Formats: sequence, C-alpha cells, structure tokens
Amino acid sequence: MNFNKILIFGLGALGTVFAVSLKFSGNRVYGFIKDEYLPLLRSKPLKIKGLLGEKEAFLDDLFTKPEELKNVELDLIILTVKAFDTEKAILQIKDFIKPNTFLLLAQNGYGNYEIATQILKRDRIILSRIIFGARLIEPGFSEVTVFGDDVVIGQPENTIPESILNEIANTFNRAGIPTRVSNKVYSILWDKIIYNCALNPLGAILECSYGDLASQEETKSLMDKIIEEIFLVAEHHKIKLNWKDAEEYKNYFYKNLIPPTAKHYPSMYYDIKANKKTEIDALNGAIVKLAKEKNLNVPVNEFITLLIKAKENIHSK
Amino acid sequence: MNFNKILIFGLGALGTVFAVSLKFSGNRVYGFIKDEYLPLLRSKPLKIKGLLGEKEAFLDDLFTKPEELKNVELDLIILTVKAFDTEKAILQIKDFIKPNTFLLLAQNGYGNYEIATQILKRDRIILSRIIFGARLIEPGFSEVTVFGDDVVIGQPENTIPESILNEIANTFNRAGIPTRVSNKVYSILWDKIIYNCALNPLGAILECSYGDLASQEETKSLMDKIIEEIFLVAEHHKIKLNWKDAEEYKNYFYKNLIPPTAKHYPSMYYDIKANKKTEIDALNGAIVKLAKEKNLNVPVNEFITLLIKAKENIHSK
Repeated sequence: MNFNKILIFGLGALGTVFAVSLKFSGNRVYGFIKDEYLPLLRSKPLKIKGLLGEKEAFLDDLFTKPEELKNVELDLIILTVKAFDTEKAILQIKDFIKPNTFLLLAQNGYGNYEIATQILKRDRIILSRIIFGARLIEPGFSEVTVFGDDVVIGQPENTIPESILNEIANTFNRAGIPTRVSNKVYSILWDKIIYNCALNPLGAILECSYGDLASQEETKSLMDKIIEEIFLVAEHHKIKLNWKDAEEYKNYFYKNLIPPTAKHYPSMYYDIKANKKTEIDALNGAIVKLAKEKNLNVPVNEFITLLIKAKENIHSK
Repeated sequence: MNFNKILIFGLGALGTVFAVSLKFSGNRVYGFIKDEYLPLLRSKPLKIKGLLGEKEAFLDDLFTKPEELKNVELDLIILTVKAFDTEKAILQIKDFIKPNTFLLLAQNGYGNYEIATQILKRDRIILSRIIFGARLIEPGFSEVTVFGDDVVIGQPENTIPESILNEIANTFNRAGIPTRVSNKVYSILWDKIIYNCALNPLGAILECSYGDLASQEETKSLMDKIIEEIFLVAEHHKIKLNWKDAEEYKNYFYKNLIPPTAKHYPSMYYDIKANKKTEIDALNGAIVKLAKEKNLNVPVNEFITLLIKAKENIHSK
C-alpha cells in the first residue's frame, strides 16, 4: 500500500511544512483551508525554510468545503488545526472521506485522540507527537525554527498494522521529516503534554523564557507542583507515563529538557501577544478536567488555567 | 498636649502629602529621607496638588541620619516607608527618639504593627488605615489622585488614651487630611488588606483594572478564593474582621467597593512596570505566612505570591 494521496487539513505553520515537504518529494498533496486564504494561496507556491530545508511547491488542489472531498481519493489526512478546532474539523469532514482513509492527528495536548475516536473508527486514527517548531512568516510561507526530535507516530491501541504505520513513516522520511513508529506514542505524547503544561502558561504569564522559569526558586516550585499534579491525575486515570514518578520526570526535565531550550519562549506567549486563542484547554485545562472526573485537587493547574483564560479575555476586549 | 512637632519618615508620595499639609497648617515638621535626595529637597519647597488641595511648604529641617534625631523634640513620627522597610526604619531610629514620642504607622498590609510592637512599647504605637492614593510626580511633588475614605487612626489594644488619639486626628483634620479615631482600626485595616490581596496581584499580573477583574468569571473565581482563604486564616488566628463571613464580604466587595474604583489599576501594577519591589509580602505573602503557622492550605494566595515574586525577579534581571 502506498500513502501518496494526502490531504493537509489546515495550512498554518505546521501544515505548510507537511504540505511542501510531502509535495516536493513526489506525493499528491491537497490542502484544506479557510475560504479567505484561497486566492492568496492559489496565486503562488507554498514555501518553507529553516531546519527542514528550503523548498517550494504548488499543491495539487486546495479545498475549502468538506463536500469537495467526496470525489477525492485520499490515503491519509493530516489534521494540523489547533487542538481547540479538532472536533469541529473532524465533524466537518467525516461524512465526505472514504472509509479507508487514515487520519493522522498532529495536535498538541490532551484530548484530540479521545475526541477523534468518538467520531471515527479507531483503526483509522493515528496519533503523532511532533516536537519541531515552525512559525508562519506569512500565509503559505513557514519556517522551521527548532527541531527537538523525530516525529513519532503510532496507534495507541494497536488497531493499525505496523506495516501501514511504517509506510506512512517512510513517506514522511522521504519527504525530509524525520519520523519513527512507536507503540508508545501515547505516553510519548504525554511527555510533551507535561513539558508544555509546566512551561507554556507560566512563560506566557510572566513573559519569560524556559531558562528564566527554571532559574528561579518561585517558578521552579510552581512547575514542580504542576508536574506533581499531572502525575497524580495520570495515576488515577491509569494513564501510562514514561516515568516512574514525578521525581524522576522532574530530574530529567531540569537536567536534560530545559538546558537546550533555555532561550525559548513558549508558543503560548506569542499567542497571547498576538491576541490569539491559546491551547490551554488541551494542556492544563485538560488536567483540571481529568482531575474533576476523579475528584482530585489540582490547584496550581487550575489557577494557571484561569489566569490564561482571563488573559485571553482581557486581551480580546 | 499638642501634636505639633512631627517627623515624616520617608518623603515618598504619601509622606510628601503629610509633610506639606501638616507644615502648611502651622506645625513644626521635619522630614527623614535618604542622603541622595537631600540637595534636591532642600533647594525648593515641597508641593502637593490634587484632591487634598494645592499647597507648598518648606519643612523645618530634613534629616538623613538617625543620630540627628537625638536633639529634636518630637511629638509624633509618621512612618510612611513601604511595608518591606518598616522593620529597618524602626530599628534605625529607636535609640534616638524620646520615650514619649508616638509612632504612627502609615503602611499597607499586614505585619507592620506586629513588627513595631516587637521593637517599641505598645503605648507608643498608633496604627492607621489610609485609603487615599497619591503618586509622586517628581521628588518633593506629590498628587493626591484618589480619595476613598477618611484616614482612620487608633491603637489596636487600647493602650493609648482616646484624648491623645483625638488630638492627633484634630491635627490631621486641621491640616486638611480628613481623619477619625476608631478602636476598630485593626479590623478596618484588615478590610483594606483583603481588598488589596484580592485585586492588586491579579491586576498586576494580568495588567488590567479592578473593573476588568470583577467582570470576568475566571478572575472572579480567583478573587473569591483569595478572599475565602483570608477568612479561613483570620478565623484560625482569631483576627476579628468586620464581616460575618467571606460571603458577606464578597457581596460588599463586588457591589460597593469595586464599582467606584472600576477604572483603577493597582499600585502593584505600576510597581511591576517600574521594576520596583512590591508589597506582596505584606499582602498575600503575609496570608501565606499566617496560614503556615496554623498548617492551613491557601493555594491561591500562595500561587499569586510566587508569581509576583517571580515577576519581580525576572524584571530586575
């Protein structure tokens, strides 16, 4: 089986990287975008630059309405919208995609797989952990500014044969996006959730870098508590994490994860600055929701979630 | 007994208002300031403008060293330094003031009376609640920008005859600073502590007005928790508040206190903007400290205290 007919749903910073890379390496690639961007994105090739190379490509077609997908053969849809749009996006397209098309979730945070499996069959849904960062220089032009690790893809409940996952990974690798398959994708994604929960909202509120957060007693104690609360929630939900306990994770976090990204500001910081909606609901907000389901107390995650939501509201006034 | 020989310790925004008003109304008034301001403040009259009138006056003398106080007859010292400098200020002057000089504390927050009574005799210490606001236009020139209520003065443990307190209040009133005596000064000061704890740090972190804070569900829920935690702490410390419970206070807070000051930004917001140390330790930080003494949990006060301290540290780098 080949995975060379691909739709990228959402041509933001990340979607543009996938679209250009996959088209440039010879696949048939379509984009699904908002109406308003159609004239602009049709008029010139999409472009990327930065750590995954400098390339440009015209996609095979751009769609703006779900029903346009009815007559398109697709092997794979890569959903690159923000987490808060995951449900809406899947509901939009679910009646128009072929039953044998796979959906790959490229969102941040918790809840995307859980939402997707309520709408589509489990053996169609692939989860990914993407830990490179891109920024949109302008619509259709994206720069990969940081590369943390390979993309990891997998099916959390092993409902998809490994051969298929390998083929998708090969397609990505051929396109210059380093990718590997793992049946631990769920806990690997949780690693990123913990990391983002600890750093993103505090960096956004205090307007400082990861390194600033890790170099201060006050912010360290807050991050410690955020992490400890997440481990508590995961334990009660029987979510398998890659770490024995919060202590083990914190050690790795401060010693190995922070130093190489010390100068980095969280994307949530830029979202707030730009008056954009943040992904707080898929991060600390999701922890609060999971905690409530088990009557657990997660005051620091709750506090920081409320602060970010307040900041969003005040800025959007 | 007359109270017409007065030292103002600290000629910041508030100290300048007291100094000019009291001197202008015919008292003998001295100032205690930092060395560096001496040339400037000697060279021209101190001035005030705004809600308590437009006046100017040369003080009788300015001092910069505690030992200079040794030969000065003083009826009253008004301490107008920030709360975090209260202890240092009293320790500096305690050996040089006459045993019959009264000390009036004009600070914000909790802990000033408690510190003062560890150093000086209780029957010399007067507590005040000052709820007008002034800003320093330049050294020696202060504007009264907001007037909430009379100054309230009193001795929390009734160790000073009411006649003396009345005489001081009269001196202030004659100087155009509306003042009344109350034996409930301690709980009246606590009203202001609760108010400041709920509004100041959140407004500083979110960079918004009191009205913004009260008009959003997220910030309301945070303020509610801050207030409830304070009532819990007060109860365990047997601190007598003016309110039956947190519910009663919250009602009054949202209905009566917020509306007239809705457009106001907290002083802590300006402190953070100006890279100044805030009074967080005398507000939410004091609540955290009081809570720890009784093994109580005050997560929201703790969180906001840590955030403000982190903000101070990051800004001062």
